[in-house]
Amino acid sequence: MKRKIYIENHPMDEARENFFHRVQETGFSSAAVEKVRVLEAYGRISSGPVFARRSSPHYSASAMDGIAVKARETELANDLSPITLGPDQFLEVDTGDYVPRQFDAVIMIEDVNFIDNCVRIIKPAVPWQHVRSVGEDLVAHDMIIPGAYPLGPYEVASFITAGLETVSVIKRPVVAIIPTGSELVEKAEENMQPGQIVESNSHMLAGLCQQWGAEVIRHPIVPDDRELLKTALAEMIPGADLIVMCSGSSAGSEDYTAGLLEEMGELLVHGLAIRPGKPAILGIIADKPFIGVPGYPISAQLVFTLFAKPLLYQKQGLPVPQPREVEACISRKTASHMGVDEFVYVNLARIKDRCIAYPLNRGAGITTSLVKADGVVLLPRGQEGLMAGETCQVTMLHEDLLQDTLVAIGSHDPSIDFLADQLRRTRRIRLVSTNVGSMGGLVALARQEAHLAGIHLLDPESGEYNLSYLNRYLSQQPWLLVNLAYREQGLMVKKGNPLGIRGLDDLFREEVRFINRQKGSGTRILFDCLLSQQNRSSSDINGYTREEYTHLAVAASVKNDACDAGLGIYASARAMDLDYIPIAEETYDICLLPDLMDEKQLDALIETIKSPEFRNNLCRAGGYRLDESGQIRASHA
Amino acid sequence: MKRKIYIENHPMDEARENFFHRVQETGFSSAAVEKVRVLEAYGRISSGPVFARRSSPHYSASAMDGIAVKARETELANDLSPITLGPDQFLEVDTGDYVPRQFDAVIMIEDVNFIDNCVRIIKPAVPWQHVRSVGEDLVAHDMIIPGAYPLGPYEVASFITAGLETVSVIKRPVVAIIPTGSELVEKAEENMQPGQIVESNSHMLAGLCQQWGAEVIRHPIVPDDRELLKTALAEMIPGADLIVMCSGSSAGSEDYTAGLLEEMGELLVHGLAIRPGKPAILGIIADKPFIGVPGYPISAQLVFTLFAKPLLYQKQGLPVPQPREVEACISRKTASHMGVDEFVYVNLARIKDRCIAYPLNRGAGITTSLVKADGVVLLPRGQEGLMAGETCQVTMLHEDLLQDTLVAIGSHDPSIDFLADQLRRTRRIRLVSTNVGSMGGLVALARQEAHLAGIHLLDPESGEYNLSYLNRYLSQQPWLLVNLAYREQGLMVKKGNPLGIRGLDDLFREEVRFINRQKGSGTRILFDCLLSQQNRSSSDINGYTREEYTHLAVAASVKNDACDAGLGIYASARAMDLDYIPIAEETYDICLLPDLMDEKQLDALIETIKSPEFRNNLCRAGGYRLDESGQIRASHA
Repeated sequence: MKRKIYIENHPMDEARENFFHRVQETGFSSAAVEKVRVLEAYGRISSGPVFARRSSPHYSASAMDGIAVKARETELANDLSPITLGPDQFLEVDTGDYVPRQFDAVIMIEDVNFIDNCVRIIKPAVPWQHVRSVGEDLVAHDMIIPGAYPLGPYEVASFITAGLETVSVIKRPVVAIIPTGSELVEKAEENMQPGQIVESNSHMLAGLCQQWGAEVIRHPIVPDDRELLKTALAEMIPGADLIVMCSGSSAGSEDYTAGLLEEMGELLVHGLAIRPGKPAILGIIADKPFIGVPGYPISAQLVFTLFAKPLLYQKQGLPVPQPREVEACISRKTASHMGVDEFVYVNLARIKDRCIAYPLNRGAGITTSLVKADGVVLLPRGQEGLMAGETCQVTMLHEDLLQDTLVAIGSHDPSIDFLADQLRRTRRIRLVSTNVGSMGGLVALARQEAHLAGIHLLDPESGEYNLSYLNRYLSQQPWLLVNLAYREQGLMVKKGNPLGIRGLDDLFREEVRFINRQKGSGTRILFDCLLSQQNRSSSDINGYTREEYTHLAVAASVKNDACDAGLGIYASARAMDLDYIPIAEETYDICLLPDLMDEKQLDALIETIKSPEFRNNLCRAGGYRLDESGQIRASHA
Repeated sequence: MKRKIYIENHPMDEARENFFHRVQETGFSSAAVEKVRVLEAYGRISSGPVFARRSSPHYSASAMDGIAVKARETELANDLSPITLGPDQFLEVDTGDYVPRQFDAVIMIEDVNFIDNCVRIIKPAVPWQHVRSVGEDLVAHDMIIPGAYPLGPYEVASFITAGLETVSVIKRPVVAIIPTGSELVEKAEENMQPGQIVESNSHMLAGLCQQWGAEVIRHPIVPDDRELLKTALAEMIPGADLIVMCSGSSAGSEDYTAGLLEEMGELLVHGLAIRPGKPAILGIIADKPFIGVPGYPISAQLVFTLFAKPLLYQKQGLPVPQPREVEACISRKTASHMGVDEFVYVNLARIKDRCIAYPLNRGAGITTSLVKADGVVLLPRGQEGLMAGETCQVTMLHEDLLQDTLVAIGSHDPSIDFLADQLRRTRRIRLVSTNVGSMGGLVALARQEAHLAGIHLLDPESGEYNLSYLNRYLSQQPWLLVNLAYREQGLMVKKGNPLGIRGLDDLFREEVRFINRQKGSGTRILFDCLLSQQNRSSSDINGYTREEYTHLAVAASVKNDACDAGLGIYASARAMDLDYIPIAEETYDICLLPDLMDEKQLDALIETIKSPEFRNNLCRAGGYRLDESGQIRASHA
């Protein structure tokens, strides 16, 4: 098949209009209806008005425990001259009991004096008092709810009361999802080949369909083979309202999809002026809408949300729920690409009175950005990017995440993740962390864009950690420096140390591929400091300019033979089963800005750091010394 | 069993504290954990942090379609002197392909010139450009999410990518529900006896449990029999985290429940100082929390929400979601009862800039009030009720119902329900209607507490409808009078007319039991007008003082032999299969306040009234003349 290098570049709004218009022409919008049993109607949507089949109560019912009487026979009762009713003049009734037609009022039991088989009363009854009339709750033929109404517990209960056994509801739209790509595998195996990718997009889209009220039928992965794809399509189309192909990430696999659509249906769009999501495919096949979703997870999520969500709600006769929008300042300069609508996924947190949006890693392949994201910022085509601090509109992806969020920006250490887990489970505090290195953490604190930062900054002059940096960069505001742990740094090398690396000297050997940490990270500063102590030039190290952002990422590179050595903490080496050559012990502290937190949050943080559970987690990880964990090392007012 | 007339009266807060405290003591809060397959984890809550088992990508991967190269070999390329790479100096790669270890950069295909089996390039590659490093998305041993985290589509997708097959989640709490009461039946049958009640509470509570993340096991209805109840309890307790008994509404059935709890466990509370919900029962049985829920649906909903919801969230290690609160003015005087915390269910709507809360029928037996309610107002013990117009806090029961709501207060006609259905389905406008009669509608309009009112007010002087009333009561503001239909009013009598009723005269016969409509309703005014034309005294009519609020309710009373005749519209007589003696034709209009609506709403209303679907619905109902439906009969600026 011919390789199509340049796909089109349809503006998003134009593509949406064009696609939705063609879909309407195929008669897509007429919602299908089905009858379900009332007890299975929970969570469904009524297709039309629902009418009661019977009245409730269906008889005159007592609203109290007491006696049924004829009101006229009680007219003269009062404190001074009570009236006594004989056995045929009243009837004992419980709440809900039938009030027979010869009676027309109920006197509550507290006002009745039983004497043998008679009763004595001292107050007249008003006609029809404490008698629930027929249909007080529901009258047969009443419209209980209109159409397009979501059925919850109360609706189901009233249907039961109203004598309904079944109810007509909107049929759930069916989405056929066909994952395609020769590089895809159904699940991760021990010995996956380089180039193989675990197919997860179809399952993500299935989850979204469930949120949106649709059902999914998923085809097993189809390799990039024209005939097999045609067979899969032919099999899936008849039962579906919407056909979705999850392409692999390569252009080749998209080309198959686009080509097939051209042959079997109508290709409307191949290529959108959006980012991520550019290689999207839109069309019609067998009079049904077709969406070809790009292979990168974030692209897939975005394209599916833009194009499938409105259709699936429309098919159910429902308005598309409008997610909440929040105004925020963006934490850092965010460039946008010329000529595309750009979607930037962000974390959101409130710091004092400001709502701040923190852009997440913008790689479209980063599934975890979807896990982390609280919202999306759209940078429209033709608009420049955002300057740091500029105001933007954030469309929320989840609800109520702004409550009790603490933001940690700074150095990466697994202990920050343990802290987040424990704060969430035991204190209901959400700790969002971004790894930008210790120096980046200080910058964020100085700008009051974080509540805390993990730092381990060696002062080459004094050999001390952190304090001199804080005095230099955070002199303008109160802070608190709390020790998290002392930890070991060392060289991580492959199991068995095949290259015989014993120390820094070996990194200068030509065949040793090093991987470095990013500039501004405490580990990088430590490394440079060690080099300068030995008067060695970093340019002689193969890989000095190659950067990773976390200890585990460095360890993974060593493990997977992307390099031979890197500097990092013992816990990461151990997690990846690598050999480890200790180089230094350093002080890992967190610096807090108490003015940005309330007392409860501050206490929760320090108490959690001191807690046995937290210490046990670090002990198990290995390489930490906890003598001073949770101790306040210094403070500044 | 001894009848216990006076149950206790525990203040709500005290009861909650006492109950929750005892429940904690039984060790209730420790959340149970289970492993589920990742593909079934959607919607669950992580029990602890989840770590990646593999890195993704697990190899150096191309981020583009293009060629993999050694960066060093491209260093000198530029526009003027392109570099040609031979077949062993590059490798064609698609996005996601493996970049073998001899290469360290990827050049995108758009920048490559293929010439025979060589490539020509005009730009140098920066080392590691367009190469996704191992673990760029996820690194093995990374904490993907902390504990107590809801698992959605993105979490599931990243678990798959991270090589997980199962994940530990919070076990769903199990609620055992035992409906009990000899008067209860499982479902409505054709020939239900007076006194029988269809059991729906257990299904309502089951729906609430589902909302709150719990599972339900439901026992079939148990009659009021001590031994049978004991057997049912013994059967249900072992598998449950919380035991709930849905009592029938009578004191007798509660007494069984309370007595059994005293015998088999610990009775903490029988009787709460709340309304509705007073006869609630709280206790401990077999070290598990026990809630005895009253028989009236609203009482059941309230007690279950107050006492079961916090426990079920706590059991899952989750915070209890706090429903949104809205400030509103109450539309009418709302009395509260001495010494109880009183919960008033309300509709909510925004009219211009005011948010108004409309109290619903306060009968605890009215299931439909739960269907209709948008929120709840708490009138705390010791506080007086609310004056009309007073500000109150409304706790929302649903979300986003304030958008595009129109409020109709006035006369009841089925056409208002049809209007509501059609506006909702086709225009996404919610029409909330309250039946208080035509005069009540005018009062609401005069106070700007409704957007529209259905009215049919006969002026006895002129014989004309509506206009003279509007001129008298609504002279201060602009209004629009739109005809809905002309409709027949007549006497509804039993099928076959056993009492031989032919006209108003027959209502004065002693054996004929009449049922009237409420004061201020157009039908009542019509009836009084007809009586005065004949110079007859209403006090000679048996049942003149007995009132119902809708045509259908009157028809149901006739149908169920609660009376013999009532005045109403043909549609109701026909729906109930009653005989009908036409008496008069009247003008049924709606009066709109255009200043309170936007143009879109106004158009939607009038267009809907004129639409064929609306007319067809009225035609099918019968008794309407539609010559002028949708026509503006008069207006006032």
